[in-house]
Amino acid sequence: MNSLIAVGSIAYDTLETPFGRRDRALGGSAVHFALAANLFTDVGVVGVVGDDFDGEPVLAERGIDTSGIQVVAGGATFAWEGRYGFDLNVAETLDTRLGVFEQFDPQLSAEQAKAPVLFLGNIVPDLQRSVRKQSQAGFVALDSMNLWIEIAKDSLIGAIGEVDCVILNDGEARQLTGESTLAKAARAISAHGPRIVVIKRGEYGAALFVDGAFFGVPGYPLEEVFDPTGAGDSFAGGFVGYLAATGQTEPDIAHLKRAVAYGSIVASFNVEEFGTERVQRLTRDEVETRVGEFHAMTSFDLG
Amino acid sequence: MNSLIAVGSIAYDTLETPFGRRDRALGGSAVHFALAANLFTDVGVVGVVGDDFDGEPVLAERGIDTSGIQVVAGGATFAWEGRYGFDLNVAETLDTRLGVFEQFDPQLSAEQAKAPVLFLGNIVPDLQRSVRKQSQAGFVALDSMNLWIEIAKDSLIGAIGEVDCVILNDGEARQLTGESTLAKAARAISAHGPRIVVIKRGEYGAALFVDGAFFGVPGYPLEEVFDPTGAGDSFAGGFVGYLAATGQTEPDIAHLKRAVAYGSIVASFNVEEFGTERVQRLTRDEVETRVGEFHAMTSFDLG
Repeated sequence: MNSLIAVGSIAYDTLETPFGRRDRALGGSAVHFALAANLFTDVGVVGVVGDDFDGEPVLAERGIDTSGIQVVAGGATFAWEGRYGFDLNVAETLDTRLGVFEQFDPQLSAEQAKAPVLFLGNIVPDLQRSVRKQSQAGFVALDSMNLWIEIAKDSLIGAIGEVDCVILNDGEARQLTGESTLAKAARAISAHGPRIVVIKRGEYGAALFVDGAFFGVPGYPLEEVFDPTGAGDSFAGGFVGYLAATGQTEPDIAHLKRAVAYGSIVASFNVEEFGTERVQRLTRDEVETRVGEFHAMTSFDLG
Repeated sequence: MNSLIAVGSIAYDTLETPFGRRDRALGGSAVHFALAANLFTDVGVVGVVGDDFDGEPVLAERGIDTSGIQVVAGGATFAWEGRYGFDLNVAETLDTRLGVFEQFDPQLSAEQAKAPVLFLGNIVPDLQRSVRKQSQAGFVALDSMNLWIEIAKDSLIGAIGEVDCVILNDGEARQLTGESTLAKAARAISAHGPRIVVIKRGEYGAALFVDGAFFGVPGYPLEEVFDPTGAGDSFAGGFVGYLAATGQTEPDIAHLKRAVAYGSIVASFNVEEFGTERVQRLTRDEVETRVGEFHAMTSFDLG
């Protein structure tokens, strides 16, 4: 049995950055998440693809359970095309073809339903709620995006009320709550139910709000950023993957802090190359070495 | 003798934020800096005002040496009027009246020249160089702004080459160097001479680059931000003031890290009220308490 099930998109991304271009690179929230989480625990992916999909071996080779990937005969895999300018924080979407993802109706197998940890990647909030109901997981984390805040806010707030942990970026947290400071936005999100709120801040790092406490880290200082696609999902994969490996369903703050560090470091590797290229061959040793550096880069003595 | 001399603007700021308005509040880079630095060490201010200036008692009451403030009879003190929208990161300048600041030609007394630490606040880079030449300080820090990068870049680079520490915000660091990542921008600035580069990131915190090492902190998580005016100068005051108090002219990394934490915390108090209102009555005990909280908020164990 997998200790962690991830539900989300599986996609082909055509990416253009100031540093180059990739056509139909393997991508999608569930893929980036699973490749990251897999460094810490055994993870199964639930998603849908068309019969044009040939990325399964990449996942299987890393030991990711792909039995939950449904293949729709005659269908096309979700395809996204985007471009980043020199400000790598902002993606311009050139083309979106939902393909089989438009009819995605995730169903967990009896065994998947028993996995102790569940990650609800960025999909329609009502589908997140449906999967949540199917699962017996003791710890459930949810990601979302601005689109659902705009067109399905009530459903999203319903979904948020049914999970233990919400992972959003700072713009989304402000947009969802209408609060200007992150501290107030996080409190407003927690008021819907989740004990844990994690805010992704891109190159500026990440913040954690739990039980009235705050923890923050800066971004790992990279010399080069090639492609930010999937950074948020890699963060979530490192964060949730590490927590799943601890076996705690109510993680304590020491483990949550460490999870933020692991998420940050896996994301820092993710953006060093295109798409999934770097995380596909990332090792746990490389992660541990960089987390050690990160610890030195973020700690000070009171003197 | 003062252990720290601060050269910069002394101003009246008329401020409008979504939370209220203040007419002719005491402000300016040297004022915000000195009120912050004064929490750690004895500081003297070098600046110029008109005979409309009545802020001297506020500084003197805190023990700040105001003997270096030149009063120009018949002149008007530098006055700035600005407005912040809900995005408190961006100030819209409504009016700038340089007054006597336009003819500012800072001259250090023999005693001021002997102060071991010098802070060159944001003024014309050639004036910063002139003051640097007058000073025998063993440790000199410099702040600047986008205006000088635009109209006096060569002079600014000259000034940077003559100091030990440069303090800029992230946009300025990128603009000055043309580098997209902060790590590269900091390296490019250090290549001009300064051993220490500090990058202010507003609500996202601050970063330090020294001897090839990096240290970063998130912003202290505030519930309310009333007025960001002077946050950068308060940061610099806490940072340089703490270092001046150590007596080190080549501060080691442990002290530099602590200095970043102190700067961050003083700045966090600064933005809680208008202008200098909060820092004017801030105590070292309050700073120490919040630095202790900040330590817990930023440290994690490797496990």
